[in-house]
Parts: sequence; C-alpha cells; structure tokens
Amino acid sequence: MNATDSPPETTITGHLLDRLHSLGVRHLFGVAGDYNLRMLDEVLAHPGMQWVGTASELGAAYAADGYARVRGFAAVLTTHGVGELSAINGVAGSYAEYVPLLHIAVGPPRSKEQDGAVAHHTLGDGDYEHFARAFRQVVCADALVRPEDGPAEIDRVITACLRESRPGYLRLPQDVALSSAPSPSGSLGRPDRHAADQHSLAAFLDAAARRIETAGTIAVLADSLVDRFDARAELSDLLSAGSLPHAVVVSGKGVVDESAPHCLGLYAGACSDDTVRTAIDSADLLIRAGVRLADTTSGGFTHGYDPDRGISAGPTTVSVDGAAFPDVGLRAALAGLARLVEDRRMTASTPAASAPRHPSPSGDSTLSQAYLWHAVSAAVRPDHTVVADQGTPLFGISPYRLPAGARFLAQPVWGSIGYSLPALLGAQLADPSRRGLLLIGDGAAQLTIQELGTIGRHRLTPVIVLVNNDGYTVERALHNPRAVYNDITPWRWTDLPAALGVPEPLVLTVRTRAELDRSLSMAAATEDRMVFIEACTAPDDTPVLLSRFAEIARRQAEDAQ
Amino acid sequence: MNATDSPPETTITGHLLDRLHSLGVRHLFGVAGDYNLRMLDEVLAHPGMQWVGTASELGAAYAADGYARVRGFAAVLTTHGVGELSAINGVAGSYAEYVPLLHIAVGPPRSKEQDGAVAHHTLGDGDYEHFARAFRQVVCADALVRPEDGPAEIDRVITACLRESRPGYLRLPQDVALSSAPSPSGSLGRPDRHAADQHSLAAFLDAAARRIETAGTIAVLADSLVDRFDARAELSDLLSAGSLPHAVVVSGKGVVDESAPHCLGLYAGACSDDTVRTAIDSADLLIRAGVRLADTTSGGFTHGYDPDRGISAGPTTVSVDGAAFPDVGLRAALAGLARLVEDRRMTASTPAASAPRHPSPSGDSTLSQAYLWHAVSAAVRPDHTVVADQGTPLFGISPYRLPAGARFLAQPVWGSIGYSLPALLGAQLADPSRRGLLLIGDGAAQLTIQELGTIGRHRLTPVIVLVNNDGYTVERALHNPRAVYNDITPWRWTDLPAALGVPEPLVLTVRTRAELDRSLSMAAATEDRMVFIEACTAPDDTPVLLSRFAEIARRQAEDAQ
Repeated sequence: MNATDSPPETTITGHLLDRLHSLGVRHLFGVAGDYNLRMLDEVLAHPGMQWVGTASELGAAYAADGYARVRGFAAVLTTHGVGELSAINGVAGSYAEYVPLLHIAVGPPRSKEQDGAVAHHTLGDGDYEHFARAFRQVVCADALVRPEDGPAEIDRVITACLRESRPGYLRLPQDVALSSAPSPSGSLGRPDRHAADQHSLAAFLDAAARRIETAGTIAVLADSLVDRFDARAELSDLLSAGSLPHAVVVSGKGVVDESAPHCLGLYAGACSDDTVRTAIDSADLLIRAGVRLADTTSGGFTHGYDPDRGISAGPTTVSVDGAAFPDVGLRAALAGLARLVEDRRMTASTPAASAPRHPSPSGDSTLSQAYLWHAVSAAVRPDHTVVADQGTPLFGISPYRLPAGARFLAQPVWGSIGYSLPALLGAQLADPSRRGLLLIGDGAAQLTIQELGTIGRHRLTPVIVLVNNDGYTVERALHNPRAVYNDITPWRWTDLPAALGVPEPLVLTVRTRAELDRSLSMAAATEDRMVFIEACTAPDDTPVLLSRFAEIARRQAEDAQ
Repeated sequence: MNATDSPPETTITGHLLDRLHSLGVRHLFGVAGDYNLRMLDEVLAHPGMQWVGTASELGAAYAADGYARVRGFAAVLTTHGVGELSAINGVAGSYAEYVPLLHIAVGPPRSKEQDGAVAHHTLGDGDYEHFARAFRQVVCADALVRPEDGPAEIDRVITACLRESRPGYLRLPQDVALSSAPSPSGSLGRPDRHAADQHSLAAFLDAAARRIETAGTIAVLADSLVDRFDARAELSDLLSAGSLPHAVVVSGKGVVDESAPHCLGLYAGACSDDTVRTAIDSADLLIRAGVRLADTTSGGFTHGYDPDRGISAGPTTVSVDGAAFPDVGLRAALAGLARLVEDRRMTASTPAASAPRHPSPSGDSTLSQAYLWHAVSAAVRPDHTVVADQGTPLFGISPYRLPAGARFLAQPVWGSIGYSLPALLGAQLADPSRRGLLLIGDGAAQLTIQELGTIGRHRLTPVIVLVNNDGYTVERALHNPRAVYNDITPWRWTDLPAALGVPEPLVLTVRTRAELDRSLSMAAATEDRMVFIEACTAPDDTPVLLSRFAEIARRQAEDAQ
C-alpha cells in the first residue's frame, strides 16, 4: 500500500490523548495500577500531557473536577474495580454539579474476560461489566472501548460530556488501550451553545417581551449553569443592559461580578439578608439564569418567589410563567433577554440596589467565625482561586462579595466534605497564574489530607486556611451539638504539611483576631511557598448564614419525623 | 388494647441494632452526616453498641471488613450519595472476598423523595435510587427500608449476607429509621452449614470413595472459603485423618495450622517452592477445600493441576473429576471426606512432607526485603492478628509459616491497596485480646493514612511495619521499573503517627538488619502503645515470590498485546 493512502497510525491511547489535548487538557489525574502501566508509558511519552499521580483515586477525581471547572474539561485515569470505585464519589459529584470530565478505567485484557477468569480487582464472578454498570448511574455517557470502533466511541462519549457538561466513562481493557488506531481526523469541537430552535426562540422572546414591558421591577438570580453552559458574557450583557438588581445563589458565586453596583450579593431564601430577599422575592419579574432550585441553595426551599412564575433559563429550555420553550439554550435566551431589556431602557426605572456590606464583627479579641470570614474575605484578591469546602467555610465566606475576577469553586449541591483540597490541586494546575486560597474545616480535611503532599510535590503555593473547631460544626449546628459523633480525632495540624512532604511550608496557628490579621498579611507577602494557617474557633461557633440555615433545617427535620 | 396483646415497641433503627447485636456486632463503623444524626442518637443510646466514627467512609468500610472477618459480621453506616459512594470500593472488596457485612445508607426523608426535590447529596434529578442501583452490583441482597415491612426486609438482607457470606445494602430514609416497629421476635440464626441434600451427599461420597481408594497420593489445597463457610474444624479433621500433605493459597493463609508437620506451606502455581508445587501438582488426588482459582492465588494461572480433576469442595457444591454434586456444603463435604480418608488409614501410605524453611537471607548488613520478611515472620506470635497489604508485604510474608493460632488478614483477590490499615482497626476492635501486626507499603499507606489516628483514638496498640521504598515496588517489578508513575510523594513517615493524634507512639526507622532486629524486640516489649517501624528498603528490591510472579505476569502481559 502506498504510504499516502494509509492514514497515519496511532493507538487507542494516542487517539484519546490527542482528543483530550485538543480540548485544552494538559494534565491527567489518577493512580497507577498494574492494568494501566503500559498505557501510562504512552501518557509519559505524549509531548503535551503530564501525568499527575495522586495519593488516592478519590483525590484524583476531585482534582479533575477542579481542573475541569477551570479548563472546561479534564480526565481521570484509574485501574479496574478498586481504583474506579474509589473515585466514583468524585465523578458523581461532577454529575451533580455539571462538570464535564472523562473517567477512564483500565482493566484486564480481553483474553481474561473471554475466559471469565477470576482476575484481581474483579468480583471473581467472571462478570467484568459490574463497575461500568455502577458508573452508568453517575455519568451522562459511557462506552466499552473496542479496537474496531474505539475512536468513534471515545469521540461520542467526549462529545456527550461537553454537550451536557457532565462526566463520561470509558471501560478500556489494557490490551485495547495499546491497539492501533488511525490518528484522529477532524476536530472535536465544543458544542455550539448559540444554537437555538428559531421558532421556539421567537415564541419565547414574544412571551418574554410582554412580561418585561409590564413589569414594574425586574431582578435577576444567577447560578452555576451560566458558567457551565458558557453564558457568562450574555448574563453580563443582560445585567448591564438594564442595570438590573441581581443576586447569586451559593453555587453561582463567581458567575457575576459581585463588586458591581447593582449586585445584591447572596440569595439563600429565608436565610438571605433582608435587602436581597426582598429584591428577589418581591420583584415583579424574576429572571433566573441557570438556577437549580436545591435545598442548599435556597435556604432549604424557603425561597419566596414562585418557581412557576417569571422567566427561567435552563441549559436547553427556557420558560416564561411556567410555559416551556424547548431547544433554546442559556446563551440564546440571555442574549435575547438582554436585547429586550435594552429596548425598554430599564436604567431609569430600576432603583440601584444598595450594596450591603457586612459590618465589622464586634466582640473580644478571640478569633470568632464572624471575624474569621470577615478577615478572610477581605484578603481575597482578584487573582485568587478560592476553593471553599462544605461546612463552616462555605457558609462563612459565601455571603461576602468577591472582588471582580476572583474565581470561586465549591460543591454546594453534592456537598462531599473533603472535595476542596484535591479540587484546589486541579484548579491550580489548570491555571498556575492564580494563587489558590483553600478554606476547609478540620473534619473535611481529614478525608483527603493526603493530597496536601501532592499539592506540595507540584510546587504549588496556595494559602490554606484550615478551621480547627474539633469536628463537624455544621452538624453540631443542625442537631445535638454535644453528641460525640461530631467529634473527630484531634490532629496536630501544623505538623502535617511538612510530614506530608510539602517543601518549606509557612505554618501558622491563630487563636486571636490580631494573629489572624498578621497571618493573612504574611500569607499575602509569602508567595513562594505554601502558607498553612490553622484558625482555631470554638466548636459551637457558627457563621451567621449557618445559624439561619440550621434553624430552618432543624425545624424541617422535626416536621419530617 | 391490653399491654400483653401489643408487641413491645422499638424503632426501625432499634430493630436493626438489636439484630446486629444478636450476631455479635458491638461496633458500628461510619461517618456522621446530617441525614443520619438522629439515627446515631439511637446508636449512642444502645447499651451494647459503640459508634466508631472514622476519618473517611472508605476507612469505615475497610474497618467493617476486618471486623467481620473476626466476628462473623459487621456494619457500616454512611450518609446518602457522598458517604456511601466513598465506601463502595470497600464493600465491593467484601463481596469479592466473601466477607459478610451490612452497609446502611441513610438518606433524605421520604417527603423530599416524593417531591423529587434537589436535595443535597443527590444527583439533582429527583431520582433517589441511583446509588442503590450502583450498590446492587457489589452486594448479594439489598432493600429499600419502609415502615410497613422494614423489619422483615432487614432480616431478609442480613440472612442473605450470612448465607452467602457477602455484603448487603440497606437504603434507609432518615424518617423511616426513626419510625416505630415491633421489637424483634425470634432470633436471626446463622445459617446451618451442616445442611446437605442427603441424596447428593451420598452420591458424592460414593464417587469420592472410589477416587480415594485408588489414589496413590492424596494432597489437600485450602483457601479462604473454608473460613468463610465455617469449615475449619472439618478441614482440620480431614488433614489429621490421613496426615495428608497440604498447602494453602495466599488467600487461605490462616485456615490451617502452618506449623503442622504435614503442612507444605504456600502454593502459588509455578511461583511455589519446588517441594510444594510437586506435592500439589503431582498428587494422584488433589482435594481442593474452598479454593477459588484466581490469578493472584495461582501464580497467574500457572497451577499444574487439572481443575477438572480431583475433588473440589465449594460453598454449596462439591465436584469429583468435574462431576458436580449440588447442595452439599463445605462442612458436609469435608466431614464426609475425613471419614473416607480415615477408613482408608492413609497415614502409612502418605510420606510426611518435608517442611521447608526459608534459609536465612545472606548479604550485607543493609536491610533487604529478604531479610525484612524473614525477621518479621519470626516475630509473629500466636496471639497476633497479622494484616498484610497488597504489595511487597503480602508477597513478602505469605511464604513464611505463621505460628499456630495467629490470625491472618489480607485481600489477595480484590487487592485494593490501603485496605489493611483500616482493616487492622476493625480486626483489633473485634478482638482486643490480640495484638495487631500491620505490614504495609508506603504507596498503599498513602490511601488510608487518616485512619492511623482512629486507631490511636481507640487506644489500640498494634505494631506497624511500614515499608518505605519510595513508591509502588510491585508495579516496578511488573513493568518499567524506572517510570515516574511508580514514584510517590515522599512523606516524613515517622512524624505522622503523632501528627495524626496517636498517643505517645514508639516510632523507629530502620535501615539495617541490626536496627530491624532491635526494633522488633522493642516492639515485642512495648505493649502499651503503638509501635511504628519505618523499614527502608531499596525501590527495586523485591521479595522472592514477587520476583517469580512478576516474571510470569510480564510474560503474560506481553502475550496479551
């Protein structure tokens, strides 16, 4: 055969890596296992890909999630059974939070499967499909990769991940990973989020125009789907078109510029500050941009607005007063709304919302949760990537406005404690130009502490604020504050960064306001290494938002019995 | 209603705890989460149950596995979604290794589910059954617990776990956990392992008798199912009836007295010592007691015996030369075989097998893998519970004979690195009269290190030998020994026990034979606290068994490409 007739050859792994690379993926997270070693040789040899071996597979999945939130895609590679199942909580979190990434589980060669052999890392019953079936519960697409159609199947799964902004799963026998394949032809484009059914879009805009024309006040509530479906610019246009008062729910932090004059801050149903609650719940027309109505983002469903009224723009469908217009994406919907609002020239008719500032906390010099988040929020810079763990950190920081440009990562719907530490690893590798600021509680940190060493190994230099309050304070706030099940094993936190291999960490313990202030200043001035601040607060001290939320949750839990 | 007419009342949780208690379970492992807090109040109030909060859910599952291997049953309690999925790798391991335990996943109240609400720890699609479906892949029975038939369903699942010696799963909405139920009536007996179909048993014994009569040499190979299906006494009777030469596979270590004169030691296919291999592979009749033919227990399927020949006794079926006799359990089969062998009076005709001893390793004074396992095995006492992690520890220790009475835990089929550390926690709580001896590599320990603190919190005083060889040496032996994916983040291991809260640990680092000897002596003499020995060996130094296994595995991996 003439060389010009045959397509250039690669392997299934080569195809996969090239596709990932074309989507901006430069790091692959995971744990080496005997089934994937030969595939990892190809990863090491790939000029544009770096292997990031983590201490645990759960850490790899969380890191990939953090990476994907920054870069738009990510991949995690594990071994069959033991490896993939250790990562599944992380992948499920990516599903719940609309984060697109690919989980590649490399397993025994096909010959073993054909024999039904009791291979290690299988259940021993000859069925090698168990874990793919488990993963099917938490991904939007999956495939068993075979030599005959592997490249096409890989492309199909990745395309689905990008379209739905959710994780996908590949089951890849180790021999198939190395089998030959044609080099990728054509590109794997990101989905066209502008696309819309023109008839449906026109009908939507008609309905929306009538509502906008007659509304006395219009407010906007924004959530993370604006980010996931690439509609930040359109949202920004909408907000500025009418200087519309707007707020974010906790999962939407970072999708708008919270320093903007018409930004109201955080909306959390009945837990919101009064100004915010009134503006959102009492608006004649509430436009919800990518908002999911979840318990943790609505103060336990204490939202005062009627979800069947107003305009709600979702990933692929928009609705006006409950009437749905399918096949209209977020981008198209928000862009259309911006034009309508601009036509009405809202500026004059909408009073600029007051931008409430949290008062400086009062009290003695002992460090309190109130002071902690006041001071930490003031230390956030535009070039920070803030990652807040579920628990007092997320409740504490979320009511504070971030400076324009700061990035914010959290997992409010899935809410897996320990997520943030490996997510920081991923987010920092995805964008090393930003400094990480990790906010995590002691209970949460115990789940994934091993990745502190991985962060150090990659010479990343985040600031880590670890809240030491002897256990699960969120749970203490919710129920039975003295119960021993909320106490954790006391660790010597300040010994851990060095013990886990972090090079020359700057480690500080703070128990007073002055110590915290000084430490945050030192952290800002110390950019060449990890700064680890152990912030000690009382076990029953809670941020204001948590106190409000806990009161509602306690009442609801009692009602449910 | 007259008080004598109404059954005493408890709750669904009360029923569950009483059932667990009746099976010898005294500790419940898990992580508190807001959905399970009220249920945990009942756990704390139960007079016979202790809550063991672990640092992570994976740790809880592994600990429960270790506990169940000692006590015959165990339970792990997590929250919905995030908690249960973090534990699923451990539960799958219990399935693969035939360990009976119950996973209880406590989720949102039914009212939320009926609304299809986006509750935290769900995927946000209103489907609360996703994770039960995932778990169905790795358990033998499961149930959604409801008030109307909760007690009966709980009993059904537990009974199946005991019968099949495998894990089960309960999905328990938090409100159902607290709903009232009648107190348990009747007892939940362990399955009658003596039961057998008498017709099938008689036919089996006829066939077996003919084989036994004509066999020149008879040998026995034993595996873990003898332990899981309660047939240790019957196996012991069989072995002594004819002074039969016998061996164990790695997963069967501990089911026979390895110090007995006719015990040959470890069988591992072509990786076995010659004496063992010849005796097993060349026996006229090989009786396999509860043997599963797995890659890791047969030297990569290099067994020399014909699996379709001889007698193979499984959990519920026994076969003679490939002909199956169903409904004959291990106990009945082995008891019957013991009588047949005794009738033939084998003693004279079977030459006593030589009991090979590993020669004392030669070489210089630097600590080698060969010397390490030689010395560690000599330090094992009859009252030890040895837990060996996958990796050089399992390959290193398994060819050495344990003293009579010593207990041995490992996970050779599932092979999840990091298993052993939490499993030690469970095994020690299950039987505090024994001292734990944990053998774990540095790569494995990085996955579950947080539970070191939990071990210390419970004032357990094991000896821990951590092999520091800078990474995954098993993988180095298998493929590409210099590849960076087998290197791990270097930790300061000796700082970790105290940093993780272990009270006054005795911490030692050894690099020479003399230091190891001295440390093991100190460990034996120091029973009142944890002894943590960091044993440093070269990254490419491997135990003999691993070298043999790796050579075969490398060849097979190349053939598979």
